[in-house]
Amino acid sequence: MPTPDGDSIGRAGELALIEALFHRQRELPGDVRLGVGDDAAVLAAAGTDDWVAAVDTVIDGVHALPGDDASALGWKAVAVNVSDLAAMGAEPRHALLAASLPAALGRDRAEALADGLHAALGEWGVALVGGDTTASAPLSLSLTLLGRAPEGTCMRRDGARPGDTVYVTGTLGDSAAGLALLSDPPPEWLAAYDWLVERHRRPRPPLAFGRGIRGAASAAIDVSDGLVADLGHIARASAVGIEIDPDRLPLSAPMGEWAWATGIDPARYALAGGEDFELAFTAGEDAFEAMHRAKYTADTRFTAVGRVTAERPGEVYGDGVPTDGGWDHFAPDGDR
Amino acid sequence: MPTPDGDSIGRAGELALIEALFHRQRELPGDVRLGVGDDAAVLAAAGTDDWVAAVDTVIDGVHALPGDDASALGWKAVAVNVSDLAAMGAEPRHALLAASLPAALGRDRAEALADGLHAALGEWGVALVGGDTTASAPLSLSLTLLGRAPEGTCMRRDGARPGDTVYVTGTLGDSAAGLALLSDPPPEWLAAYDWLVERHRRPRPPLAFGRGIRGAASAAIDVSDGLVADLGHIARASAVGIEIDPDRLPLSAPMGEWAWATGIDPARYALAGGEDFELAFTAGEDAFEAMHRAKYTADTRFTAVGRVTAERPGEVYGDGVPTDGGWDHFAPDGDR
Repeated sequence: MPTPDGDSIGRAGELALIEALFHRQRELPGDVRLGVGDDAAVLAAAGTDDWVAAVDTVIDGVHALPGDDASALGWKAVAVNVSDLAAMGAEPRHALLAASLPAALGRDRAEALADGLHAALGEWGVALVGGDTTASAPLSLSLTLLGRAPEGTCMRRDGARPGDTVYVTGTLGDSAAGLALLSDPPPEWLAAYDWLVERHRRPRPPLAFGRGIRGAASAAIDVSDGLVADLGHIARASAVGIEIDPDRLPLSAPMGEWAWATGIDPARYALAGGEDFELAFTAGEDAFEAMHRAKYTADTRFTAVGRVTAERPGEVYGDGVPTDGGWDHFAPDGDR
Repeated sequence: MPTPDGDSIGRAGELALIEALFHRQRELPGDVRLGVGDDAAVLAAAGTDDWVAAVDTVIDGVHALPGDDASALGWKAVAVNVSDLAAMGAEPRHALLAASLPAALGRDRAEALADGLHAALGEWGVALVGGDTTASAPLSLSLTLLGRAPEGTCMRRDGARPGDTVYVTGTLGDSAAGLALLSDPPPEWLAAYDWLVERHRRPRPPLAFGRGIRGAASAAIDVSDGLVADLGHIARASAVGIEIDPDRLPLSAPMGEWAWATGIDPARYALAGGEDFELAFTAGEDAFEAMHRAKYTADTRFTAVGRVTAERPGEVYGDGVPTDGGWDHFAPDGDR
């Protein structure tokens, strides 16, 4: 991406960046009648499938430390939305990107941004079909993700029933730990720390697992604001209580190592740290077989962390569970 | 929307604003299986209809003068996308809104923003089905608009043929004149000026007319960056030349009055002023009946302003037509 100067992307660089952002995909799937380059994208019908749509914004300095790896920001713009569709059990198909690009973005960051965006689009097989750019600071990416699911099968937040078990995929708190490490790097940097930072920078939502438990789970949500805050949405939407057993929270080995080295309480990160982009879901015993089939086909572990109760409807509770949902720090925004 | 203080919206005001932005619509159309409040929106299939998707961002200080009427910004976030769907001949149905809201937004502007947004959603019958908010400056709204059109019928940019006539709806240059008036108000304010400012603040794309000429027009685009710039997209996509007759550009009476009072050249505004959100389209003689039927059913005037040629492919030309497309000033962004 040659530009007239090294510090700012300039006009030539801006055009090159737009080319890199919007025109890198050479082949689009057959259901894209019209992609980037007209007034709107046109997508063919998909039989009786429902269409599923989510939008999320990532902003330099809000969802990433100011000036941090731009490829991570590009990746995250896609991943945060894939996480939403994973929680619905839907298959992501098409994306539209509204990008605010500061004139002083710089050539290297512009290239990294496009690289990260397209790595994530490729990872989940998403076609970029439209968008809009504005010359404006700060660097901000609003990505709309469109997907599909068989008619009436999407997982919602309002189906949890007393007696169900509460599960989460993967491990919790790693992203918040990675952010803490990036913000205040320890004097002796351990290899394990890189793993936590990568969990913060390049989340990988369990998309295939979400589709696997569709029809089996009674409710699902992605863990983006922190486990307690997100389970609170299920508790209120389903009018049930959710009791968590903090001793059963799944922690990664690097999280354990970091907690041991620093003396922090890993449960606090697992309960309230945001941006894990794992799934939290509720299911009855009848879902057991489907869950375990999904576990092996999607290669995604899950852990029982609590139960759905008829007591304290709308609340998430348990020994050592913060009643206010935890930090606000890791939840600068929200889904509507 | 009561808030603890008058200058900033505060936490209570932020929640009230989110309520006003996302939860004001009480009844959603039947094809919305799941709207605001889950991980994603779920929309029912629409038979064999194509889905049409556009996204555009409006930013305080970029697409409106800093601190100008926030209700206009809310209106414009919808209108700019309705304009894109009008140019496709599609019917808008659902919207997702990604909003960046500064903490210092202020109670009155927050209320005005929600009012303008919902006035426009109501105007065109659009259901707000999802979104995302971020506490971040500047005030910025990225709206994704989803709509539909019968399979394979959307108007594109690449169908213009030599011999076609070039038409535009409404009048041109009014929005740019309104912006000029807002930026530098004349000492004697005339009632006609309010009309121009309103054309800038609250554009009304000719949506019904766009659907009316679908199948009849050979190519269409909305006039957002300025007539010459936008016709350039048709010229390049269709590999044709477009010759404009500047004497035939449709001008409004207030524009004429303003030009008379100030001595400016109205053709310059009509050719290069952005944000008119009218339609430019090409059509052969076979389209005559459909165009005139659409004119009366949609109550939208149109004017022939030029012709499609086999000469100078990719170019827009004519006596007094700027070769560079005009100002960049009115085109801070672009569709991809």
